[in-house]
Amino acid sequence: MCGIVAIAGKGPVNQALYDALTVLQHRGQDAAGIVTSDNHRLFLRKDNGMVRDVFHTRHMLRLVGNYGIGHVRYPTAGSSSSAEAQPFYVNSPYGITLAHNGNLTNSEALAKDIYRSDLRHVNTDSDSEVLLNVFAHELQIRGKIVPGIDDIFAAVGGVHVRCKGAYAVVAMISGYGIIGFRDPFGIRPIIFGERDTANGKEYIIASESVAITSVGFRVVRDLKPGEAIFIDNEGNMHTRQCAENPVYSPCIFEHVYFARPDSFIDKISVYKARLRMGETLANTILKEHPDLEIDVVIPIPDTSRTAALELANHLNVKYREGFMKNRYIGRTFIMPGQGQRKKSVRQKLNPIELEFMGKNVLLVDDSIVRGTTCREIIQMARDAGAKHVYFASAAPAVKYPNVYGIDMPARTELIAHGRTEQEICELIGADALIFQKLEDLVAAAREGNPDIERFDCSVFDGEYVTGDIDECYLDALQASRSDGAKHRVQQGPNLVDLSNGD
Amino acid sequence: MCGIVAIAGKGPVNQALYDALTVLQHRGQDAAGIVTSDNHRLFLRKDNGMVRDVFHTRHMLRLVGNYGIGHVRYPTAGSSSSAEAQPFYVNSPYGITLAHNGNLTNSEALAKDIYRSDLRHVNTDSDSEVLLNVFAHELQIRGKIVPGIDDIFAAVGGVHVRCKGAYAVVAMISGYGIIGFRDPFGIRPIIFGERDTANGKEYIIASESVAITSVGFRVVRDLKPGEAIFIDNEGNMHTRQCAENPVYSPCIFEHVYFARPDSFIDKISVYKARLRMGETLANTILKEHPDLEIDVVIPIPDTSRTAALELANHLNVKYREGFMKNRYIGRTFIMPGQGQRKKSVRQKLNPIELEFMGKNVLLVDDSIVRGTTCREIIQMARDAGAKHVYFASAAPAVKYPNVYGIDMPARTELIAHGRTEQEICELIGADALIFQKLEDLVAAAREGNPDIERFDCSVFDGEYVTGDIDECYLDALQASRSDGAKHRVQQGPNLVDLSNGD
Amino acid sequence: MCGIVAIAGKGPVNQALYDALTVLQHRGQDAAGIVTSDNHRLFLRKDNGMVRDVFHTRHMLRLVGNYGIGHVRYPTAGSSSSAEAQPFYVNSPYGITLAHNGNLTNSEALAKDIYRSDLRHVNTDSDSEVLLNVFAHELQIRGKIVPGIDDIFAAVGGVHVRCKGAYAVVAMISGYGIIGFRDPFGIRPIIFGERDTANGKEYIIASESVAITSVGFRVVRDLKPGEAIFIDNEGNMHTRQCAENPVYSPCIFEHVYFARPDSFIDKISVYKARLRMGETLANTILKEHPDLEIDVVIPIPDTSRTAALELANHLNVKYREGFMKNRYIGRTFIMPGQGQRKKSVRQKLNPIELEFMGKNVLLVDDSIVRGTTCREIIQMARDAGAKHVYFASAAPAVKYPNVYGIDMPARTELIAHGRTEQEICELIGADALIFQKLEDLVAAAREGNPDIERFDCSVFDGEYVTGDIDECYLDALQASRSDGAKHRVQQGPNLVDLSNGD
Amino acid sequence: MCGIVAIAGKGPVNQALYDALTVLQHRGQDAAGIVTSDNHRLFLRKDNGMVRDVFHTRHMLRLVGNYGIGHVRYPTAGSSSSAEAQPFYVNSPYGITLAHNGNLTNSEALAKDIYRSDLRHVNTDSDSEVLLNVFAHELQIRGKIVPGIDDIFAAVGGVHVRCKGAYAVVAMISGYGIIGFRDPFGIRPIIFGERDTANGKEYIIASESVAITSVGFRVVRDLKPGEAIFIDNEGNMHTRQCAENPVYSPCIFEHVYFARPDSFIDKISVYKARLRMGETLANTILKEHPDLEIDVVIPIPDTSRTAALELANHLNVKYREGFMKNRYIGRTFIMPGQGQRKKSVRQKLNPIELEFMGKNVLLVDDSIVRGTTCREIIQMARDAGAKHVYFASAAPAVKYPNVYGIDMPARTELIAHGRTEQEICELIGADALIFQKLEDLVAAAREGNPDIERFDCSVFDGEYVTGDIDECYLDALQASRSDGAKHRVQQGPNLVDLSNGD
Repeated sequence: MCGIVAIAGKGPVNQALYDALTVLQHRGQDAAGIVTSDNHRLFLRKDNGMVRDVFHTRHMLRLVGNYGIGHVRYPTAGSSSSAEAQPFYVNSPYGITLAHNGNLTNSEALAKDIYRSDLRHVNTDSDSEVLLNVFAHELQIRGKIVPGIDDIFAAVGGVHVRCKGAYAVVAMISGYGIIGFRDPFGIRPIIFGERDTANGKEYIIASESVAITSVGFRVVRDLKPGEAIFIDNEGNMHTRQCAENPVYSPCIFEHVYFARPDSFIDKISVYKARLRMGETLANTILKEHPDLEIDVVIPIPDTSRTAALELANHLNVKYREGFMKNRYIGRTFIMPGQGQRKKSVRQKLNPIELEFMGKNVLLVDDSIVRGTTCREIIQMARDAGAKHVYFASAAPAVKYPNVYGIDMPARTELIAHGRTEQEICELIGADALIFQKLEDLVAAAREGNPDIERFDCSVFDGEYVTGDIDECYLDALQASRSDGAKHRVQQGPNLVDLSNGD
Repeated sequence: MCGIVAIAGKGPVNQALYDALTVLQHRGQDAAGIVTSDNHRLFLRKDNGMVRDVFHTRHMLRLVGNYGIGHVRYPTAGSSSSAEAQPFYVNSPYGITLAHNGNLTNSEALAKDIYRSDLRHVNTDSDSEVLLNVFAHELQIRGKIVPGIDDIFAAVGGVHVRCKGAYAVVAMISGYGIIGFRDPFGIRPIIFGERDTANGKEYIIASESVAITSVGFRVVRDLKPGEAIFIDNEGNMHTRQCAENPVYSPCIFEHVYFARPDSFIDKISVYKARLRMGETLANTILKEHPDLEIDVVIPIPDTSRTAALELANHLNVKYREGFMKNRYIGRTFIMPGQGQRKKSVRQKLNPIELEFMGKNVLLVDDSIVRGTTCREIIQMARDAGAKHVYFASAAPAVKYPNVYGIDMPARTELIAHGRTEQEICELIGADALIFQKLEDLVAAAREGNPDIERFDCSVFDGEYVTGDIDECYLDALQASRSDGAKHRVQQGPNLVDLSNGD
Repeated sequence: MCGIVAIAGKGPVNQALYDALTVLQHRGQDAAGIVTSDNHRLFLRKDNGMVRDVFHTRHMLRLVGNYGIGHVRYPTAGSSSSAEAQPFYVNSPYGITLAHNGNLTNSEALAKDIYRSDLRHVNTDSDSEVLLNVFAHELQIRGKIVPGIDDIFAAVGGVHVRCKGAYAVVAMISGYGIIGFRDPFGIRPIIFGERDTANGKEYIIASESVAITSVGFRVVRDLKPGEAIFIDNEGNMHTRQCAENPVYSPCIFEHVYFARPDSFIDKISVYKARLRMGETLANTILKEHPDLEIDVVIPIPDTSRTAALELANHLNVKYREGFMKNRYIGRTFIMPGQGQRKKSVRQKLNPIELEFMGKNVLLVDDSIVRGTTCREIIQMARDAGAKHVYFASAAPAVKYPNVYGIDMPARTELIAHGRTEQEICELIGADALIFQKLEDLVAAAREGNPDIERFDCSVFDGEYVTGDIDECYLDALQASRSDGAKHRVQQGPNLVDLSNGD
Repeated sequence: MCGIVAIAGKGPVNQALYDALTVLQHRGQDAAGIVTSDNHRLFLRKDNGMVRDVFHTRHMLRLVGNYGIGHVRYPTAGSSSSAEAQPFYVNSPYGITLAHNGNLTNSEALAKDIYRSDLRHVNTDSDSEVLLNVFAHELQIRGKIVPGIDDIFAAVGGVHVRCKGAYAVVAMISGYGIIGFRDPFGIRPIIFGERDTANGKEYIIASESVAITSVGFRVVRDLKPGEAIFIDNEGNMHTRQCAENPVYSPCIFEHVYFARPDSFIDKISVYKARLRMGETLANTILKEHPDLEIDVVIPIPDTSRTAALELANHLNVKYREGFMKNRYIGRTFIMPGQGQRKKSVRQKLNPIELEFMGKNVLLVDDSIVRGTTCREIIQMARDAGAKHVYFASAAPAVKYPNVYGIDMPARTELIAHGRTEQEICELIGADALIFQKLEDLVAAAREGNPDIERFDCSVFDGEYVTGDIDECYLDALQASRSDGAKHRVQQGPNLVDLSNGD
C-alpha cells in the first residue's frame, strides 16, 4: 500500500507536500519522495525511510516550485530498494513524473509491450515505472509539441485500456500541469480538494481526505472510477471520465484496517464504518454465542479500538485498554557470538495484568491474517491470568491474497486459507473465536454511501473485481512472493539499485 | 525528566540496556547513552537523539561487557547539547560513570565546593556532572586502593549530606560494581529486579518496573528513600539505608502524567491510580456540576484515556475517541522568503467531527500547564460543531514550578499561577472547567500503597518536600529559565560542547 | 575538463572502473559517477566529491555487471550541482547512459531542437544531457527493436552532423553494448585498449592511456577524429569512421598542463613533450636573454617540474626544488565575528629560503593564465631573499578563452589578453619574463606524432578549429561566465538539482 | 609518529590550530583532534581521519576560546580506535588536556603506579593517557587551589623523574594556561614561536618550525631537552629547565624521512641535511663502486628527491623523475565472490618507460625498512626495460626497532636485521646496493648544528639513548606488535573504544 499527494499551487508547495505525506505516513513507512517543478525544471528527493528521515532542510531548499507530487511507500515484495522509491521520471515526452498507489496485474506483459512499441527501457521491478512509461507512450503518440487537455485525457484513456489492476495515480507533466486518475473499478482511493488564495485557487489530490483537510484545503470530492483530473499550468481545473465502463467497487480493506479513521473514503466515514463493524460484530456474538460470559472487552491497539468500544457498548460489557502499546520500538542487534533472539509481540504490547486476572476476556482485533500474532497475544492474556480468552475479528476470515496493492502473504501463509473457523480457533488457542460476517462488513461500509455498487472483498471471498485473476496468476504470485522473499534474503537490499536515482 | 537503567549481568548487557532504554523512552527523547565495562575498561556511546537513532550496530558492537548503565534525557533548560548527554565519566578514583534522574537544587554551590575541595573541574552546566564529582570525591577521601562495600555506602551517605534536591542515580565503578541510590525523600522513582541464569543471578536497576519486566527480569522492590543498592563484580547484591532521616515522599506527577500506565511506582499501579482519578473526578463533577448535560466524554490522547474512560463509566455517559492523534509528526522548515508558519496543535490532533456535531462534550486531559494547547483544542471542538465544550483535568491546577527534575515552564507561564478557576475557564474558552481536587488525587495514588507518608505535590500546592526552596530560589529559577531560553536561541546548541564527550 | 572510462568485460567491472577513475582524478575532482549494466538493468552511483569519497563499499556492492562506464568532472560554470554529475541516463530508446568530456558550442540550440523534434525534456544546464538526448534521438529514429551495428554508427554520424564543439564520449546501451566516439576534430583525447582473459577479450575506453595500462589492459590505439568504437554484448569489437571530413586537431593544452606526464595522447608521450618544451624554452632564453645571469632554476610544482629540469640542463644551471608543496590543504572556515581571511598561495607553497637567499632565480611554470598566483609566487621568492626573479612559462601567453571543455576564465580575466609581454612582466613583478613561442610548443608536441595535421591552439592564437566561434559567441560566454559566477554565489549549489539524480 | 601544536592567543585560535595541524598532517594521518578553552570551559573535537575530514564547520563553531591544543596521530600498534585520538582529558585537578608525540617505554608500569598512588583509572592502551595522568598527579600533589608557575614546572620535573622514553608534549590547564615540554634527551622535536598583535603577544608551540611560520608566527627557538615552556592565562611566557641531567640527542630519523624538508629541527635545515646526504652518498658510491656505469639517477618519490638530485649532481649523472606518483589513491573493495586482489606498489607509482629502456639506472630511496616495496620497484624498473638496476639508500640499513614513537615493524620484519648487505641486495633483486654510512648520515645532520651532542640512531646501531631498553623489552615489543596485529585483524577497530570520547 502507498500514499500519494499532488498540489498545484500559487506558491511554494514543498512544505505542504511534506506535511501531507506525514499525514499519509500510515499508508507506507518504507520510502518517501517528492518532486517539484519550477520553470520546466524538476527537483527530486526520494529515499528509503520515513518522511521525517528522508527530507532534511537541504533537500527542502532544493524542492522549489509551485507544483509537485509526493509518495510514501509500503514495503512490497521486490521493491525494497531505494532505487524503487517514487516518484519515477521519464524525460520523453515533456518530462513526466508519476507516483502510484495500487498494483498492475499485467505489469510483466506491459513491460515487454512498451519496450517493443516504444523501445522504452524499464529499469526496476516496479509496476509504477511500467505505468509511467505506458502513460508517457500514450501521450507521446499524440505527437503534440504542446499537449492539450484532450491529449492528456486521451492518454489516461489509453492507460485504462492497457493497464489491468488497481491504480490511483498522480503525475506531473513538466511545464504543463498535474494530473490525477483512478482505475475504472475505483479500487484504490483518491480524492481532491481546493482552497482560495490571494493569487487564485490551489488544488490538491491525495489518497485520503485527512491529507487534504490537515494541510488547510477543503475536500471537493472523490475521483470517480475511471475519472481523471487535470490542473493546467495556469491553475485551471478539468475533470473527465476516461474509461468505457467504470464500475464503482472500492477496496473494503481500507475501512477494515488501512485508512485513517478520521478520513472519508468514497464519502464513507472510516470511523463510523468501524463503529458499525463493532455493532454488527456484537450482534453476531449475541446471536451465535449467547452463552459466552464476558467480563471485559479488550482491544488489540491501535486500529481495533473504535470497533471494540462500540462492541462493548452493545454487549453492555466493560471496555478496558488492557494492552499498552510500546510507542518506541528498538532493534534487535545481531552480536557475534550471541544467539539471535526471537522478535516477539511482547516488544510491542504489554498487558495490564489486573485487567486479565481471573476474568473472561474478549480480545478484539481488526482482522486475522497469519494468525501468529493472535496466538501470541492470546497466550499473553492467559499468562496475565485470564480465565477464558475469546477472540473476535472485526473482519471476516482472510482467505485469499490481495492483488490490488496491499502487501499480504501468499495463500498458504494465511491461517484461514483452507481451514474451518474451529480449526483456526484451535490453532490460535482461543476459547472461542468470532468472525465478522462478510455481509455485515459490507453493510457497515455501504451504509455510509449507498451509491457504491460493490466492494472489492477479494481477500475474503476470492472474487477479484477486475475479472482477470485466475489460478494461474495466483500460483505465480505464490511462487514469486516466496521467491521474492528468498531473493531478498540472499542478496540484501543493497544489491538492487536503479538508474533513475541516487 | 529522565530515565535510568543499570544491569549487572553474567553475559553481555548491551542489548538489554538498549531494550530497557527503549521502554523508558517516554521519560526522555532528547539524548541517550550507554556505558559498559569489561575487564576494567569502559565503552561509551551517547549522543543527542532517540534511542533508535543514537545506537547503530557499530556502536553496539563496541559496548562489550557484562556490566553497564544507560540513560535517556528529557530536554531541560541549559542542557541541550550532546556534550551533556549522560552517562558522565570521571577517571579518578577508579573510573566512575554515572547517570541521574532528578535535579540538584544546590548544584551551583556544590560545583564551587568540589573545585575547592578536590580541584575537580566541571565542564558543563549539568547537575549530573556535579553529582558524579561529589560521589567521586566522597569515595576518594576513603583512600582505598580497593573500595569495599562500606566505602561505597559511606560515599552515598556523603552524597546525601551534601546534595539537596531529587535524585535517582545509577553509577558504575570500573572493576568494582554497579550502584544505585535514591535521595532521602525518594522523590524520583527507582526500582530493582533480578533473574536467574545458568551462570548465577543477574540484577537490574531502573526508573520504572516496566523496564524490568519487559527485558525479562522480575521486580524485587523499589529502593527506599535514602537507600542504596550495590552489586559487586562477583555479582553479590547488597542494600543499605544511607540517609539519616529519610521521608517517603515520592513525586505525584509520575502518576498524573509521567510514568507508563503499565508500571508500578512505589508499589502503586499507575494504571489503577489513573482509573481512580477518573472515578474521583466523576464524583467531583456530579457534586459540583450536577446540572451539566454531557453527551459524550472525549479524552485528549494519549495519557488521559485511562482516567477519561473510567470517568465516563461513572458519569454513565458515552466514551468516544473523538480526537485522532497523528502518530507521525513532521518538521516545519524555515524557507528563505517564506513566512514561518505557526506550529499548531492541529498537526498533532484531528477531530472526528461527527462526535462533536451538535453535542455537549466533556474533554478530559491529564493536567493543564500553560493552557495554550487546551485553548486550541477547545476551539477545535467548537469548530467541529460542539454545542457546549466542558473541560476536566485529572490533576489539580498546576500553580508552581517543578524543581525536582520535571521540565516545566516558569511560574509566570503557568496559566493557573495567580488565577482563579473561573479566570482559567474563561482564558481557555471552556463552558465549564473542572479540576481534580488535590486530596482526591493524593487519595487515588495512596490507595495503591498506604505506606507512603506523603507525596511531593509541590506543583499543585507550592510545598517543596526538601524544605530548601524559597522565593529567592524560585526567582532565580524564573530568571534562568527565561535567560536559558534566550541564550539557546542566540547561540544555538552547536556552540556548547563539553570535553567529556563526542 | 573531465575524465571518462568504459569497460566491456567478462567479469565484474566495478573495481576496475573505480581504479581507472582514480587514475583520471587529475582531470576532474568535482564529481564522480559510475553506471554498470547487468542483464538489462542499470546500476548508478554518482555524487559531488572525489572518487574516494563518492564510492563506499555499499555503493560498490550495488554496481554489478560486466559492462559499465564512469566519469570524473571538473567544476565548470553552471554545473556545480550533484544533479549534474555524470553519467546521465535516458530510458528511451533502450535505456542509454552517457559520459562526456568536452563542450558543445551549440548546446542551447540543440536543447530546443530535441524538445521540438522528440519532445525530450532536458532537466539540467549540462551539455552532456543534451548530447545524450541527441544521440538517443538519432538512435530512436532508426526504429529498431534490436539496434544493429549500423544503427549505432549511424546515430554517431547523426551526432557529428548536429553537434558542434569538442566531445569525447562513452555511452552504454542497456543490453546491447558500449560505444565510444570522438568529435570530427579529435579535440579531446580518447583511447582504447584490450586484454585477454580466460573468458575472452575485454575492452576498455578511456581519456588517457595511463588509465588503460594502470588497470592491467594494453593500449590498442587512440580513436581517430570522428571515429567510433562499439563493443557489443557478446564482446565483439567494431570501429568505424562516422564523420564526413575529419580533421586531426587535438588540443595542445593536454600536453602543456592537463594530461598526466606518464600518458600517451595521440601517440605523443606527454612527458617527452614537456622535456622538449624545456629544451626549446632554454633555447629561447639563450637567444633572447643571453645576458641573464641565472643561479638556479626553480619549478612551480608539480606540473612544470619536467620542463624545468630539462630547461636547467640545457642552460647548464642548477635545478632545485625551492618550493615545497603542501600536500594537505585545509579549509578556511567563516566564523561569526571573525574577518574572513584571504586565501593565499602561501597555503599551497612554502619556499626553502636558502635556495633563494641572494640568488638570481628563474622560476618556471607550465603557463600563465590569470597571473595572480604568479605575482604572489614572485613576491614569495623576493621575500625569501632572491636578488633577481625571472619567470619562464613553458607555454605561450594565454590570450583567449577555451570553448572546448577546459574551464578557463573569461577573456577579460586573462592577464595576457590585450597586453604586451612587457606589461605582463611588470604586472607580475618579474625582473624578466620569457614565454614559450607557439611554434616551439607545437613542434615540441608534434615531434611525438608527425601525423597530426594541426593542434587546437585557440587559447594562444584565437583560432578555433571548429570554425563556428565568433565574437558573438565569445561575448555570450564572457557574460555567462560572469553571470554564472554571480548566480552561484546568490543561490548556492543546494538550490539547483535535477530530476535525474539523487 | 604524531604532530602536536598549541596556541596561547589573544583571539580565537580554532582556525590557526586547524591550519597548523594541516601543515603537520604528514606526521600523522590516522586521527586528529583539537581542544580549546574558554572561560574555564573546554571544547573538544577529535576523531579518526585526516584533518580535513575530522573538522567540519559545526565542529569549528564549537571550538571557541583563545587557548587551545591540537594533535594528529600516526597509526601505531594498539591505538587504532577513535577513542585513542588525542588530546586526552582528566577533570582532576583543574581540568587538564594533553597531546603527545613520542612513546613512553615504561608505560605499563606507570599505569599500575598511578592507579595505586592516585586511584586514577586509565581507559585505553595509549601511553598519552598515562602521561597525562602522571602529570595530573604530580600537579595534584602540590595541593594548590590556584597552581603557580613553580607548581607547574615542578610537575614537569616529576614527569621527567617517572617517565622513560621520548615525549614532546603540549598540555592545557583549564583556566591557567598552556604548557609544552620535552623529554630530557630531546628525542622528539618541539619548537615555539610568537607574534605581536594589537592585544599583546601570542605564542605557539609545535612539532616543526613550518607549522609556526605557515600560520604567521615567527620561530623563537627549539625547546631544550628537559625544558618546559608555560604561557599563563594573562599571556606571560615562562621557560625553565626541569630535568636533572639533560642530554641533547634528537632522533636522526626526522631528517632522513619524517620531517618536512622546509622545517628546521633543532636548528638544522632538514632540506640541507638531505642535500648533504646526497653528497655523502655520492662519495660512497664513487669510492666503493667506482666502476658502476650509471646512465640516470631516479628518485623514489617524494622524500628522496632532494638527496637524489644532489647525488646526481655529484655523480655528474642525469637526474630524471622516472616514476610518477599517483596522487589519488583509491581503495580495493572486497566483493563477494571475487578474489581479493593484491595491493601493489603499482597503484602508487608508474614508471616513465623511456627513462628506463636500455639504461643503467640508479634508484634512490630515503631508507629501506621491510624491503618489499624496494623489490617491487626494482622489478618495475626491469619491466620498463632497465639494463641494470642499482639501488642507493640515503640512510644506513635499518636493523633495530624504534621505541621512541615511530611506528616501525618488529625486528624480524626488518630486511636488514641479521643480514649482510650482499644478502639484502640479492633479496631485493638489485644489481648493486649502496647504503649511506652512519657516520656520514650523522655528519650530514650535525653540520647544521654542531651543538648537538649526539643523535638517537638506534634503528641503525641498536644503541638506545635512554639506556633502559634491553633484550627483554625488545622481545616483549616483538611479541606485542605481532599480537597487536593479529588482535586487530580478529576484532576490528570497532571493538575498542574508550570512555573519554565519542
